[in-house]
Amino acid sequence: MTSMESDKCWAECMDVAVEIARKAGQMVQEAVKQEKRVSSKSTPTDLVTEADQQVEELIISTLRERYPTHRFIGEESSAAGEKCVLTDSPTWIIDPIDGTCNFVHSFPMVAVSIGFAVMKELEFGVIYHCFDGTLYTARKGHGAFCNGVRLQVSKEKDVSRALILTEIGAKRDPATLNIFLENMKKLLSAPAHGVRIIGSSTLALCHIASGAAEAYYQYGLHCWDIAAAAVIIREAGGCVIDTSGGPLDLMSRRVVAAGSREMADYVVRQLQPISYERDDHQPIVQS
Amino acid sequence: MTSMESDKCWAECMDVAVEIARKAGQMVQEAVKQEKRVSSKSTPTDLVTEADQQVEELIISTLRERYPTHRFIGEESSAAGEKCVLTDSPTWIIDPIDGTCNFVHSFPMVAVSIGFAVMKELEFGVIYHCFDGTLYTARKGHGAFCNGVRLQVSKEKDVSRALILTEIGAKRDPATLNIFLENMKKLLSAPAHGVRIIGSSTLALCHIASGAAEAYYQYGLHCWDIAAAAVIIREAGGCVIDTSGGPLDLMSRRVVAAGSREMADYVVRQLQPISYERDDHQPIVQS
Repeated sequence: MTSMESDKCWAECMDVAVEIARKAGQMVQEAVKQEKRVSSKSTPTDLVTEADQQVEELIISTLRERYPTHRFIGEESSAAGEKCVLTDSPTWIIDPIDGTCNFVHSFPMVAVSIGFAVMKELEFGVIYHCFDGTLYTARKGHGAFCNGVRLQVSKEKDVSRALILTEIGAKRDPATLNIFLENMKKLLSAPAHGVRIIGSSTLALCHIASGAAEAYYQYGLHCWDIAAAAVIIREAGGCVIDTSGGPLDLMSRRVVAAGSREMADYVVRQLQPISYERDDHQPIVQS
Repeated sequence: MTSMESDKCWAECMDVAVEIARKAGQMVQEAVKQEKRVSSKSTPTDLVTEADQQVEELIISTLRERYPTHRFIGEESSAAGEKCVLTDSPTWIIDPIDGTCNFVHSFPMVAVSIGFAVMKELEFGVIYHCFDGTLYTARKGHGAFCNGVRLQVSKEKDVSRALILTEIGAKRDPATLNIFLENMKKLLSAPAHGVRIIGSSTLALCHIASGAAEAYYQYGLHCWDIAAAAVIIREAGGCVIDTSGGPLDLMSRRVVAAGSREMADYVVRQLQPISYERDDHQPIVQS
C-alpha cells in the first residue's frame, strides 16, 4: 500500500471502530442494569464479569470477520491465555470494559477502548464512555476530538496549579501499597491542586487530552488501557512516556501522560517504581 | 404551624430549591467555559473563584427575598466572616460550587448543594450535578430520588466487596497526609474493591445514596458539603454518622456515610482521626 492508500484504509478502520465502540458501549450500559456474576483474575481485586468476556467477543468477532488478516490483543483473550505481542501486522488493542470494578458497582465511569497499531505504531484510538455516551477519537496526524469537538491539553507547567490523576492497580501487598501511597504523598505535598482516582484509566487519560487535568501516572495498567488513549493525548498536544522518562513502552504496564513535557518530567522525578509483570511476559528492564 | 402545615411549607421550599439549584447549576456550567480568577482561602489548595461568590449571592439573595425570616449558611458567606451556627430557625445550608478545584480545571464533577434544616433537623436536600444535569433530591420521610427515580443504597456488609469513596481535604502538612494515606491503606488492604477520590464530596455522597459505592468517609469537609447529601442518603436507606461512630455532628467537619450500618461501623473502626477546626468554631470534643 502507498501511504495515501494506508491512510484511507486506517481512516475506514477507525469509522468501523467508532461504530462498534458505540454498539459495545450500549451493550455495557444494558449489562449495568443486570445482576453481575463477578470473579477475579490476578488478585482478589482484579475483577472480571461475564459482560467483559461477551463484549470483547462481540468486538473481536465483528472485526475479525471484516478484517481476517488483522491481529487482536484483548483484555479477556489475554486473560484466557492468548499471547499479548505486538507484531508489524495491523493490530487491534481492545479493552471491552475499562473500569470493571466501577462497572460491577454501577459507579458511572466505565469505557470501551479500541486502539489500533500498524508496524508497532499506534494509528488511532476510540474511547466510548458507557454511562454518558461521550466519544473520544483521534487518528495520527488528524487531531483529537470529544464528540466531534477538537481537544487541547493543558499547557500548565507548574505542579502547584496541577490536577493529577492516577489509579491504584490490582496489587495490594503492603510493599506495593506503601510505594503507591508514597508517590501520592509526593504529589500532594508539592502541593498539587489535587489528586483524583476515578477507577477508569482510559477515561482519566481522556481528561488529560481534554485539558481537565494536567498529568496522569500509573503502574500496573495494561496495553489495552493505554493504546487508544495515547493517540488521543498526543493528538491533543500532550505527551505519553514511560515512568522512567524514556519513550512509552506499550507492554511495560507503566505510563506518565501530561499536557506538557515539563509536567510529565516533573511527575517522572517524583515517582518510585512499582514492578508489574510485563504484558508480553518479557523480562523487566530496570531503569 | 401544625405538622401538616409545616410539611406543606417545606415541600414548597424544596420546589424552590430545585428551581434555584438548576438555575445556579446552569450559571456554573456557563462559568466553566470562562477564564477563572482563582484565589485561595485556608490553605494554598483551598480554592475559591469569583463564580463561587456570584453563584452563592444569586442563591441567597433569591431565597432571602422569598423567605425574609429564614437564615442562611453558605460556604462563601462563611469565608467572608458570617457566623456558621445552626439555630432552631429554618436555615438554608448552601454550597454554590462543590468541587471548586474540579471547577477550576473543568474536571467534570461539580455540584450545587442546597440543604434545609428546621429546629436543627435536616428537612430536605437538593444536589445538582452541573456537568451532566443530574438532580438528586430528598425530603425527610418522602424518599430520595435521582432525576425522579427512587434511590436505594447498597446493602453490602462485606468490605471485600465494597467500593469506598473519600476526599483529600485542604490540609497538606506531612502529619495530616500521613494519617490520610494510612486510612486509605487500611481500606485498600482490607482489601476493599477500590477507593475512589472524585473531588466532589456531595457527588461522592450521592453515589452512596444511589448504591454505586458502599461507604464514604472524610475529615475536613464542611456542613454545606453534608447537609443536603445526608438527607438524600438517609432517605435512600443509608446511614450518615460521625467518624467516632456516634451521631452526625453537622459542624464537626467529619463524616462516615454508608449503605449499611455494618459497613459504616467497619469504616469507623479503621479510621485514625484528622483534626480540623469546627465550622461553628466551638472547641473540638475528642472521641
